[in-house]
Amino acid sequence: MSALVIAGQRLNSRLLVGTGKYRDFALMREALEASGAEAVTVSVRRVEVGAAGHQGLLEALDWRRYRVLPNTAGARTAVEALRLARLGRALTGSDWVKLEVIPDPTYLLPDPLETWRAAEVLVQEGFVVLPYIAPDPVLAQRLARLGCATVMPLAAPIGSGQGLRNRAMLEIFAQQRAQLPPIVVDAGLRWPSEAAGAMELGADAVLVNTAIAEAQDPVAMAAAFRQAVEAGRRAYEAGPMPERAVASPSSPAQGVPLPQPELPL
Amino acid sequence: MSALVIAGQRLNSRLLVGTGKYRDFALMREALEASGAEAVTVSVRRVEVGAAGHQGLLEALDWRRYRVLPNTAGARTAVEALRLARLGRALTGSDWVKLEVIPDPTYLLPDPLETWRAAEVLVQEGFVVLPYIAPDPVLAQRLARLGCATVMPLAAPIGSGQGLRNRAMLEIFAQQRAQLPPIVVDAGLRWPSEAAGAMELGADAVLVNTAIAEAQDPVAMAAAFRQAVEAGRRAYEAGPMPERAVASPSSPAQGVPLPQPELPL
Amino acid sequence: MSALVIAGQRLNSRLLVGTGKYRDFALMREALEASGAEAVTVSVRRVEVGAAGHQGLLEALDWRRYRVLPNTAGARTAVEALRLARLGRALTGSDWVKLEVIPDPTYLLPDPLETWRAAEVLVQEGFVVLPYIAPDPVLAQRLARLGCATVMPLAAPIGSGQGLRNRAMLEIFAQQRAQLPPIVVDAGLRWPSEAAGAMELGADAVLVNTAIAEAQDPVAMAAAFRQAVEAGRRAYEAGPMPERAVASPSSPAQGVPLPQPELPL
Amino acid sequence: MSALVIAGQRLNSRLLVGTGKYRDFALMREALEASGAEAVTVSVRRVEVGAAGHQGLLEALDWRRYRVLPNTAGARTAVEALRLARLGRALTGSDWVKLEVIPDPTYLLPDPLETWRAAEVLVQEGFVVLPYIAPDPVLAQRLARLGCATVMPLAAPIGSGQGLRNRAMLEIFAQQRAQLPPIVVDAGLRWPSEAAGAMELGADAVLVNTAIAEAQDPVAMAAAFRQAVEAGRRAYEAGPMPERAVASPSSPAQGVPLPQPELPL
Repeated sequence: MSALVIAGQRLNSRLLVGTGKYRDFALMREALEASGAEAVTVSVRRVEVGAAGHQGLLEALDWRRYRVLPNTAGARTAVEALRLARLGRALTGSDWVKLEVIPDPTYLLPDPLETWRAAEVLVQEGFVVLPYIAPDPVLAQRLARLGCATVMPLAAPIGSGQGLRNRAMLEIFAQQRAQLPPIVVDAGLRWPSEAAGAMELGADAVLVNTAIAEAQDPVAMAAAFRQAVEAGRRAYEAGPMPERAVASPSSPAQGVPLPQPELPL
Repeated sequence: MSALVIAGQRLNSRLLVGTGKYRDFALMREALEASGAEAVTVSVRRVEVGAAGHQGLLEALDWRRYRVLPNTAGARTAVEALRLARLGRALTGSDWVKLEVIPDPTYLLPDPLETWRAAEVLVQEGFVVLPYIAPDPVLAQRLARLGCATVMPLAAPIGSGQGLRNRAMLEIFAQQRAQLPPIVVDAGLRWPSEAAGAMELGADAVLVNTAIAEAQDPVAMAAAFRQAVEAGRRAYEAGPMPERAVASPSSPAQGVPLPQPELPL
Repeated sequence: MSALVIAGQRLNSRLLVGTGKYRDFALMREALEASGAEAVTVSVRRVEVGAAGHQGLLEALDWRRYRVLPNTAGARTAVEALRLARLGRALTGSDWVKLEVIPDPTYLLPDPLETWRAAEVLVQEGFVVLPYIAPDPVLAQRLARLGCATVMPLAAPIGSGQGLRNRAMLEIFAQQRAQLPPIVVDAGLRWPSEAAGAMELGADAVLVNTAIAEAQDPVAMAAAFRQAVEAGRRAYEAGPMPERAVASPSSPAQGVPLPQPELPL
Repeated sequence: MSALVIAGQRLNSRLLVGTGKYRDFALMREALEASGAEAVTVSVRRVEVGAAGHQGLLEALDWRRYRVLPNTAGARTAVEALRLARLGRALTGSDWVKLEVIPDPTYLLPDPLETWRAAEVLVQEGFVVLPYIAPDPVLAQRLARLGCATVMPLAAPIGSGQGLRNRAMLEIFAQQRAQLPPIVVDAGLRWPSEAAGAMELGADAVLVNTAIAEAQDPVAMAAAFRQAVEAGRRAYEAGPMPERAVASPSSPAQGVPLPQPELPL
């Protein structure tokens, strides 16, 4: 399989993971290990206020093994996102930022205008910007031209587990991949098959948090997502069989029916 | 992961594969190796008439490594299927038979009445019967009570690559699994994600032929299916997160929005 | 729109309806009126035992206006279905019978083997047989050759309201309509759009009960189904636009973009 | 059925139609008549340059019967859209404008940032603005707060005929309808059932052009869309039955199976 390269950095796994919603840090560490992920996102705001499950989070992981990806969850406006991005850089030493600007508490959908404003400033300030967006291919292209390092369209609302519901628009992202940075499908997945499906349609990576952290067995689920993402990418590169409107028997002899008359039982 | 047991025999892989449509035997052998499959199905009728790609097929594989699963493809009636099943037993020494009774050359869909008639006789003759059927849960239960060793509902027409189109009915199979032998989803898959999806909904195994044999790179695709089937089963056993109508942020602090007023840029 | 002809009888509506689950007969009568349906199915067994909502049902409707379609709901075997079919004929004077043989109380799915056995006898006894079946195109063809007057594949389990979940198999029915009697999609619908969708893919009629009877306003919902079925049939006959992988602007001038440079705001 | 009100104007039909792609004006007039639509959109740019099918278009329709809805198709930027909106007002005397800002010629997807910029100016200039947008609920809410008269999310790319592919996001629009002006699903439909489905999920109206104009029989298809939109709205207001995971028989007596033993045949 080909490697994923974001902003010139090679990542050996096409699965990115989050750190929220785990029962405890030990389980989180074990799940991250099983996932094979190299890039791990952390909520700057939740670390800042010491939200449940976030006290000591930055110390709980071995950052020599993982690339930290601070995110701006909690920001409702561009201004708030900028503050969190800068705080994230100060806390982690990383220029990378997963940009989330989310005014809506029910569906946690991102604001395209505020995201755009924040991305413009952050790129100028030298951040490596990975914006979380609605599945809007034109917005993605504009963020690409601005210099964003990825585009991160949502498969379904964050934490909803509804799966690859925006497949139609994600297929257009994939068709336009020549004009886009890596496409990271982010949010809404529940099952590994959905992650595999995102890779098969041409996504470069997927980001998963809730589907692993809230599985009954998060470690086994992390391992399952790892395999599924690899399977999906491998299949994409292998090239699928053609789809057909009708059936196709297993040999050119068209079913090779038996001659008539037939012997009795 | 738990093992698959069919008719008392433990199979280490939940992926079963076919032998049709490969460019040559060397490629087939390599793809089978990459698939990790233990059970391999062979068309008795095509071997009998030496159809394209089937001359020497039985000699081309090392049957110490694989469990041979003769199939009755080419049979349009119960009578024809019985002849092929018996011939398959004579040729391979195996009691197992993948029962296909297919009158329709366009969609290659099985005949429920003829399949039933043939299964009844074959079970009485001591065969281990694995019938290929439409996604009809009541037919499946009746075949189970007859003593069939699996039920093999189709995801989509053979070789069509349309994917998990009969998901709704397959979900009913899975709900009724306590009354069924192993459920092997057979036919119609194109992508590994679809195989993973079948496993996640509760199938016990999948059988894939065309999707591997007609991939641009069959060996890589076989490896992808292997991973996907394992991922799907692992996820099924791990237990998924709940699905939600709305979004769910990554911590109990509900998004932890920033206090107002906000600092200026 | 072309007329629906079943067993030589012309029906002016392609919507067939049931009589179960209504709050009272007055509401049922009003809903049936609004539906425009001509064929109305009645459970012989429920009338026989005077089940809730079925005492006096046969007297509650003006059978000069409606064609009664006795059904064998409650039958779990061919033998039971035969008894109910004959009883239905005695009670109603009609030779038509909607044949339901349903062993499974959870999903109410029909038994293909018992249905086949019962159909064979009923056709010989001069009944006009309309069998309720799983979406199995080969079973449908066999019932057609037996002389059944329609085939009635299920869209989803009875009363589940899950919609056109077996679309893939129903499309195969439609492809094979030259070899089939009228295809009546029966069971599982919830919304008029689903009834329209069934007609658009080539079904000849739909049968709806729960979606009307359990709507909050059954009379309005009946009117909606009436319109939707007509819309779907009309669209099927009108012939749709081609589907395209990409967009298509509204004129040959390809978007007619404006010349550059552009005037300032 | 309740009436559709846009910017204080009552429209008696919830189906809006376009004027592109018709073979000739006579056919267009007949199809518009059959559609029952009151609001009809016209490409200002194509009229301006006299593109194929647009010479004399404004004179070909009786504008006492229809509300003209000039659109800015052809605009790739906010600046271009403003010019076309103003030209449309001058040509038609109407303040209403369907705002389309589309930089992408392949999928004809709108630009959220340029649309926003143009909408801001047009609202200030007193236009009644109906913006065509990606299925982005947050963008929709921002345009609503700006004072737009509708939001017009796309079901699928213009003219693609792929149907209600963005259903998941459109459902979120409908959930948030209290904070939105009328939701007009625009673009991508092929079948009347899809228009009905959009209405059933809570859209206020649909706009259809290609599906009617490119049908084999545009007049019949227009009538079908008319019925389907009415059916969908009526069903939405009637309130559907509940959806169930399993089946539900047609009476409380749970299938009323027959007593055993059974009489012989």
